[in-house]
Amino acid sequence: MSKRIGRQTLAFPSAPAILSYASVVGKKEGEGPLGIGFDRVSQDSYFGQESWEKAESEMLRQCFNLSCDKAGLASSALSGIFAGDLLNQCVSSSFAMKDSGLPYFGLYGACSTMAETLTLAAMSLDGGFGEQFCAITGSHFCSAERQYRFPLEYGGQRTPSSQWTVTGSGALILGREGKLRLKLATPGRIVDAGVSDPNNMGAAMTPAAYDTLRAHFADTGRSPGDYDAIFTGDLGALGHDLLETLFAADGVSLGKHYADCGVLIYDAAAQKVNAGGSGCGCSASVLCGHILPEMERGRWKRVLFAATGALMSPTSAMQGASIPGICHAVVIERED
Amino acid sequence: MSKRIGRQTLAFPSAPAILSYASVVGKKEGEGPLGIGFDRVSQDSYFGQESWEKAESEMLRQCFNLSCDKAGLASSALSGIFAGDLLNQCVSSSFAMKDSGLPYFGLYGACSTMAETLTLAAMSLDGGFGEQFCAITGSHFCSAERQYRFPLEYGGQRTPSSQWTVTGSGALILGREGKLRLKLATPGRIVDAGVSDPNNMGAAMTPAAYDTLRAHFADTGRSPGDYDAIFTGDLGALGHDLLETLFAADGVSLGKHYADCGVLIYDAAAQKVNAGGSGCGCSASVLCGHILPEMERGRWKRVLFAATGALMSPTSAMQGASIPGICHAVVIERED
Repeated sequence: MSKRIGRQTLAFPSAPAILSYASVVGKKEGEGPLGIGFDRVSQDSYFGQESWEKAESEMLRQCFNLSCDKAGLASSALSGIFAGDLLNQCVSSSFAMKDSGLPYFGLYGACSTMAETLTLAAMSLDGGFGEQFCAITGSHFCSAERQYRFPLEYGGQRTPSSQWTVTGSGALILGREGKLRLKLATPGRIVDAGVSDPNNMGAAMTPAAYDTLRAHFADTGRSPGDYDAIFTGDLGALGHDLLETLFAADGVSLGKHYADCGVLIYDAAAQKVNAGGSGCGCSASVLCGHILPEMERGRWKRVLFAATGALMSPTSAMQGASIPGICHAVVIERED
Repeated sequence: MSKRIGRQTLAFPSAPAILSYASVVGKKEGEGPLGIGFDRVSQDSYFGQESWEKAESEMLRQCFNLSCDKAGLASSALSGIFAGDLLNQCVSSSFAMKDSGLPYFGLYGACSTMAETLTLAAMSLDGGFGEQFCAITGSHFCSAERQYRFPLEYGGQRTPSSQWTVTGSGALILGREGKLRLKLATPGRIVDAGVSDPNNMGAAMTPAAYDTLRAHFADTGRSPGDYDAIFTGDLGALGHDLLETLFAADGVSLGKHYADCGVLIYDAAAQKVNAGGSGCGCSASVLCGHILPEMERGRWKRVLFAATGALMSPTSAMQGASIPGICHAVVIERED
């Protein structure tokens, strides 16, 4: 039986359940509008470690352990882990998970990783390859900043279109029984619209979000109104508006229930983050610290979560290449 | 129905078939003992491009197109791509595939990527999520050397335990019908034995190969003698012998039919590669340029292919961290 709908959407007939979810974030994220929803807020940007890279690993480790605790599972009960991050060679994930003793699938989807891990974990469950899988990702402002841009000590000026990498992580345990279910996924294609300004990631990723969401609506015959809420990952304020503009040209309104995680996580003016938040940890922590809790509280029943990523590197940018984007989308529903 | 065997082995009841495979390599690899088997050997290390990173992308693009051609498929017929490489943010894969118009799953498994992509592609097929998937990876000596070690112009001395990153790529199209079949996979756990010498990757990865192969034999009740050939990815000469030593301590002989792709691909003495080949492209090109052709010719019927990776980064090494390894194994059988 094919589980494919249309060109690129996947159905999960067994509707893998979200057994638990956890979020661990930094101080700035804890002070933002969604602060109250996160499971743990660290006041120490080093998370007790001696480098920011190790801090990022420690944050992921805490988030993973917390997700297991909340599911009431020993980590050894899991069938495997899908994980990824922004650091070169994805070391924060692999070092975080190296003592887990679990089959490990390393992924790289840039800031789209939360939806990529969820898609593959749901495919694995639905395919019968295990009973519980963890999907986890995160990012850290300080490690990302010095890797992608400048050492923090340099005090580089930020452009108005720039975004602030979220120090945050999200982890979900997927399994068989639960109220929140993964029903569909639309894995994205890489879209390169020729944007080459690494200080305007929103513009680079928005064409990919448009491509995936358009495919999702076409494949499923649904429209934005069929969802109680639609979230993109980290397009930021500029990308959010650009996505609305692209759909408006098709005569489609995403509606007032469309929001971007990068816009939601900070108070842009008060927290001086310019166009908003970004990074793997942005959509991951907003999913686990805001969207899923609100779904459980009954605010939304059917949500479309579309994480977005920019598939560039500092080297590709320095070599003058444009910035290809990608967006993976998953549909989460509350079953009462 | 669970498709899990033992602790970490996965069964594929539908036995996804290898519709085609292709390999594109560099000059040095073409001059090695396996040279005659590769589909394409580039005499130009730049592959006609202006940087080594772009060369790596071009090599992957050629390999992907060739695999589609050999399968007699338009690339648009594929359901998706699983890809990854060694470059920061995996840019050689994403830039190679950005115009494919296909759902794209980016992976990071270091040099284990060929087996990781194959495992996930086989899981996707077996789970019913599509009809044809591509699994692809590769590496380039020149881009890897300057990213992980020194600029080539520096002329750094190489230790006797060092390995030579293979300029090469391998791509497979998996589908429903064919003679070569994927029957089982044992996705690996991360194993950190405390090795911290980035010039001795073989030693760092061997404990992971030992862990995965031991799990594979325990899960399946098989022994090395149940395979006509066993290949590890890129342990090199030192790692190859170390793996035999570890198994010997358990009273297990891997047998004369155990070989390492990193040992096979070069004539170590004549080609001055010290401990042998490494990189994602090592096991990928040996699989597609040697192992699979020999299986088709009837030399081996049942092969255990275990690609190995080191999950470190230059930053983690400079911060004094040890080098965690991972090994993913797949079983390929010829059905007559």
